[in-house]
Amino acid sequence: MALAAAAERTRRIRLTSAVSVISSDDPVRVFQDFATLDLLSGGRAEIMAGRGSFIESFPLFGFDLEDYDELFAEKLELLLAARDSTELTWSGQYRAPIDGRGVYPRPLQERLPVWVAVGGSPQSAIRTGRLGLPMALAIIGGEPARFATFAELHRRAAQEVGHPAPALSINSHGFVAETSQAAADTAYPPFATMMDRIGRERGWPPMTRQAFEASREPPGANFVGSPEQVAEKIVLQHGIFGHQRFLIQFSVGTLPHADVMSSIELFGTEVAPLVRRELDSVSENVVAP
Amino acid sequence: MALAAAAERTRRIRLTSAVSVISSDDPVRVFQDFATLDLLSGGRAEIMAGRGSFIESFPLFGFDLEDYDELFAEKLELLLAARDSTELTWSGQYRAPIDGRGVYPRPLQERLPVWVAVGGSPQSAIRTGRLGLPMALAIIGGEPARFATFAELHRRAAQEVGHPAPALSINSHGFVAETSQAAADTAYPPFATMMDRIGRERGWPPMTRQAFEASREPPGANFVGSPEQVAEKIVLQHGIFGHQRFLIQFSVGTLPHADVMSSIELFGTEVAPLVRRELDSVSENVVAP
Repeated sequence: MALAAAAERTRRIRLTSAVSVISSDDPVRVFQDFATLDLLSGGRAEIMAGRGSFIESFPLFGFDLEDYDELFAEKLELLLAARDSTELTWSGQYRAPIDGRGVYPRPLQERLPVWVAVGGSPQSAIRTGRLGLPMALAIIGGEPARFATFAELHRRAAQEVGHPAPALSINSHGFVAETSQAAADTAYPPFATMMDRIGRERGWPPMTRQAFEASREPPGANFVGSPEQVAEKIVLQHGIFGHQRFLIQFSVGTLPHADVMSSIELFGTEVAPLVRRELDSVSENVVAP
Repeated sequence: MALAAAAERTRRIRLTSAVSVISSDDPVRVFQDFATLDLLSGGRAEIMAGRGSFIESFPLFGFDLEDYDELFAEKLELLLAARDSTELTWSGQYRAPIDGRGVYPRPLQERLPVWVAVGGSPQSAIRTGRLGLPMALAIIGGEPARFATFAELHRRAAQEVGHPAPALSINSHGFVAETSQAAADTAYPPFATMMDRIGRERGWPPMTRQAFEASREPPGANFVGSPEQVAEKIVLQHGIFGHQRFLIQFSVGTLPHADVMSSIELFGTEVAPLVRRELDSVSENVVAP
């Protein structure tokens, strides 16, 4: 719903969810919704399918967490089937079979892009590669360098079954301001509030400014800083992952609207050009996002 | 999705679907989607829940048409439960039980309006009245006067269980142009094309211009004509139903965008004022829509 509203307010950006938890949804409906979004937006929709980090939707919609992985594998298969054929015949274990039914509407794009959002599961990276699908690697904590294995598993799995190398995206949290200090001072309070709120449900220790500052360092996961700092970190990670796309979520917790708008503007007018210039100089083979 | 896009383009109109077929959907998700729409639109969302005239969604989503009526009754109950409490505990026959789970987001309106869309079933009218819910009576063929029974059943059922009289809406097809002849000439070709297309699947006889012209007469179901003609028909039906709301769908089949826009404008600037003036003069008790 929010993406459809965004489709009316924007003209060029691509529209994708943080993640569509297809495991606890009906993939046919997810496809129909995004096909509608694609028509509304002139062909800018993408599906980001994932197993979900938040698991509240499983008991709410009557799914068993014990089937976490099988549910996703089966539903991803159904999603791809709905994308690839209008007349659908399908059967599986977790959803009623479909016997030659039409799935409408069809998207404007000939093939609605389906990305798989992966957190930290090697099996997920391998499955995504075997299907030849692009992977979005969510890195929102820990040391990014340790995620290189997943990128490699994805690439190799695709290669082994003869797919051309599928795209890789790194998806992280961040916030851009004119100076590093301003970025941290603005982003930290809502970040800490939200992390502690989630942490109380999940049993995490309270967030500290020290841990936050560490995550802003070059080897950390957060992209909170000045335009130069954020650009350097993207380029640094590109040396590790060789990814084709980088997605940043500009707030964790509630930030004032003007701050988010300013962060978006700095990202587009300063960070992105810096990154493009830097990567053009080190490689001829970078695929533009 | 289309309503969320409309939310961004409009400021005052209320946003409601032709019908949300909750029987073959998950009412919790329908509620969540419309709660999101309500937040996006500043409190203008409404749910129009119905059993559906088109039944293609039942086999596609794994529901049995033999359960057509029970499915709707149970899912309507769950929809109302999700509307009326954030922490939901519920169990039924056709959907996994819910054990004290939170349903989010919550709408902006204190109570998201739920209308029940009824075609031609006395049981539906009675059920809707017993629940004290407003009813939208779809009259798209036949003689409207014959639908008076449903309005009466709805009103009486509400009365019997002590509910205040719930609102009634008449929902019909139509098209407004400067002259009656222009309205008919513009609306007929796409109307016939669409009706014949549906008719081929359902075994209807081909549409004729004669039948179309008959439906435009005062005792017919279609509101195709000049502003005066359409206004007179609404007032005539008000004498039969005493309804509080009238909804018109401005095209059956594909009409040029400019014609639909012109029809909407004539409806707002000429038809509606004519109807208001006429009804103000005959009754003091009309509730504005």
